[in-house]
Amino acid sequence: MKIRHVTVTPIAFKDPPLLNASGIHEPYALRSIIEIESDNGLVGLGESYGDAPVLTVLQSLASELVGLDPFDLNGLRARVTAAVGRAKPASAGAELAPGSHPGKQVANAYSAFEVALLDLQARHLGAPLVDVLGGAVRTQVPFSAYLFLKYREHIDSPYPPDDWGEALTPEQIVRQARRMIDQNGFESIKLKAGALEPDAEVACIKALKRAFPGRGLRIDPNGNWSLETALRVAALLRDDLEYYEDPTPGLEGMAELHRRTGLPLATNMVVTDFSEFRRSVELDSVQIVLADHHYWGGLRDTQTLARMCDTFGLGVSMHSNSHLGISLMAMSHVAAAVPNLTYACDTHYPWQEDDEEVIAGGKLPIRNGCVTITKAPGLGVEIDHGQLRKLHELFLSIDIRQRDDVRQMRRYKPEWKQVKPRY
Amino acid sequence: MKIRHVTVTPIAFKDPPLLNASGIHEPYALRSIIEIESDNGLVGLGESYGDAPVLTVLQSLASELVGLDPFDLNGLRARVTAAVGRAKPASAGAELAPGSHPGKQVANAYSAFEVALLDLQARHLGAPLVDVLGGAVRTQVPFSAYLFLKYREHIDSPYPPDDWGEALTPEQIVRQARRMIDQNGFESIKLKAGALEPDAEVACIKALKRAFPGRGLRIDPNGNWSLETALRVAALLRDDLEYYEDPTPGLEGMAELHRRTGLPLATNMVVTDFSEFRRSVELDSVQIVLADHHYWGGLRDTQTLARMCDTFGLGVSMHSNSHLGISLMAMSHVAAAVPNLTYACDTHYPWQEDDEEVIAGGKLPIRNGCVTITKAPGLGVEIDHGQLRKLHELFLSIDIRQRDDVRQMRRYKPEWKQVKPRY
Repeated sequence: MKIRHVTVTPIAFKDPPLLNASGIHEPYALRSIIEIESDNGLVGLGESYGDAPVLTVLQSLASELVGLDPFDLNGLRARVTAAVGRAKPASAGAELAPGSHPGKQVANAYSAFEVALLDLQARHLGAPLVDVLGGAVRTQVPFSAYLFLKYREHIDSPYPPDDWGEALTPEQIVRQARRMIDQNGFESIKLKAGALEPDAEVACIKALKRAFPGRGLRIDPNGNWSLETALRVAALLRDDLEYYEDPTPGLEGMAELHRRTGLPLATNMVVTDFSEFRRSVELDSVQIVLADHHYWGGLRDTQTLARMCDTFGLGVSMHSNSHLGISLMAMSHVAAAVPNLTYACDTHYPWQEDDEEVIAGGKLPIRNGCVTITKAPGLGVEIDHGQLRKLHELFLSIDIRQRDDVRQMRRYKPEWKQVKPRY
Repeated sequence: MKIRHVTVTPIAFKDPPLLNASGIHEPYALRSIIEIESDNGLVGLGESYGDAPVLTVLQSLASELVGLDPFDLNGLRARVTAAVGRAKPASAGAELAPGSHPGKQVANAYSAFEVALLDLQARHLGAPLVDVLGGAVRTQVPFSAYLFLKYREHIDSPYPPDDWGEALTPEQIVRQARRMIDQNGFESIKLKAGALEPDAEVACIKALKRAFPGRGLRIDPNGNWSLETALRVAALLRDDLEYYEDPTPGLEGMAELHRRTGLPLATNMVVTDFSEFRRSVELDSVQIVLADHHYWGGLRDTQTLARMCDTFGLGVSMHSNSHLGISLMAMSHVAAAVPNLTYACDTHYPWQEDDEEVIAGGKLPIRNGCVTITKAPGLGVEIDHGQLRKLHELFLSIDIRQRDDVRQMRRYKPEWKQVKPRY
């Protein structure tokens, strides 16, 4: 089996006005959809970032992968490494939105194609993708309710307001959680924080605890709190959280916070590659790593990361950016193969519109908080090419080419600056 | 694809009177040959320890694996873990020979079957096994010349002396090395030490350095030297070695030795599982880990180990026990998939007799110090059932059921004790 053709299609879809430490989501999110066709007519699928630095690398690699054996992941890595070495896009490295990692060029591009190749391998075998990862230890993969503080609508919105409404108060956040849990059955709840004054966000967690007793709660200010603020909030929330995610910036800051509070700290910001993992182990900075195959270098490396977490006594959860169903299934298949998935995974999926999915049949269901892994070959999903074309045309019609939550917030607040920690 | 039948066949083959820290090899080595047949008629192969504690577990599992999907490695692990939990053989855990790990019941048994299942997967795909591990980064896998101090023949030998002759002096060791290199082209040379007075072994290394300038040299006394002796030998050999393997026992002793000499220390004794890896990282005990899929838990876990070594800045080499061609090919396929194989692998293979191989066509060639990975499906080797039967009958005819180099040495020296460190 050899790769015959690779297509990388950038798409855009509506993104609600969600607040975070850097600013606010723009009205559209960008993704890339990868289709890799083999010479036996099978097609493997992938989904990755659609931001210009990543897209440039992905598109430059498309023709270079022709002829590669879909099982030759080491060969893929060599080609990606060579291509990134030649490209060096100028804008790589800037953090324009929390938890996006445009600077991780090799890992990002490798992952985008690795998922599609593993999907091809599994389709070739007529088996679900999880089988080429060693088989499912669970077929129900748990996700959490991912709550956001948000405005009612985008500034100068190009489309009508979403039906979630404003969420700037504890009551509104509880209402958002209730709807999301009613629709999806989530057992854990994560609040994206770092957007309002810390006490307002503490009040949201307290309200969620009262409204949903027994459910695991998490708060994630994306490193937007000083050590002092993080310590103060820790004292207020120490009995309420299953983990405390990226309260304060840096491996050293997190290590100090853990030393002084004993609270389990989670991250998708200070441990984002294997060298940071090593440094975190040395400092005891974090106790839970949020894996994300998109920037950790694919599904196999996510498995390696999980095994390393097991070795060093760390918990495993999963990070998410705005994404569609191909990413959801890639996340679910690898999570299904990780024995020590100690916490439900994050997902932005409930925030995406029903009519903006690129997979046939529309949005995937999340029931009892879980995505189901079936026996369907590969990722278990197929492309709806009409939808793909529609979202690609949307991409072509807008001028967003790299996610920038700071720039977007300046449209609301011209004096807004990228400051961290802000509080 | 489902497993239809599993056969575990214990075999014995001649083993020369090789000396080491514990004593001396017995006249026969034991192995298990695993054949796993799937419902589509394919057969996957494995080779593991043949010692009673391992054999008991492997044989008890044979019928329990029927019906398992060969891709379900997580399912294999679950069944192995359950079976070992029930069995708990009494003699597990004692180190009767250096570098054997009878206590690692789950990892040993899992590995024995994992290799056979990966072989089945690859044969099902019509691809070499390395392809299901991510593809070959090299097709020539380098091995080292593994030299032993040895007697001319076994005490009360059941068969005529081997044609290697005695090796107790530097001249005899150089002669052994020359023959082994002439036949196989090895570029690195390892001396198994810890058997004679340290100065006699230092003299062997000095003689090897003179006879083979430019070749990488290693010495491995299997933890049989006190810290003081290890320090003294370090001073004598510090410019002669590519690494210094297990000179002194324990993670703490190795850490102290490294602190005081700066020499790169290698091990297959103090880092033999992931928890010891963690402890070694904390102490900076070793700088090179000798992987061995037989006790590290299979080929995938060996890849994980290699990635962890990369993460923590450690080198990777490979350990060997007495083995035949199925193990050699499993070692070679995983080594072919490990980008950071920083040193040539160890192998006892040249010590086995030409007419005692269980694979069709007889012993595999090692040329220019390397085993070649071909495009043949799976491990690339098939069983010669006549040979397998012959070596199984040999197993049945002898009374060795667990390797014990201490007991064997007592036949030469009745006062011999298991003391470590001896020097």
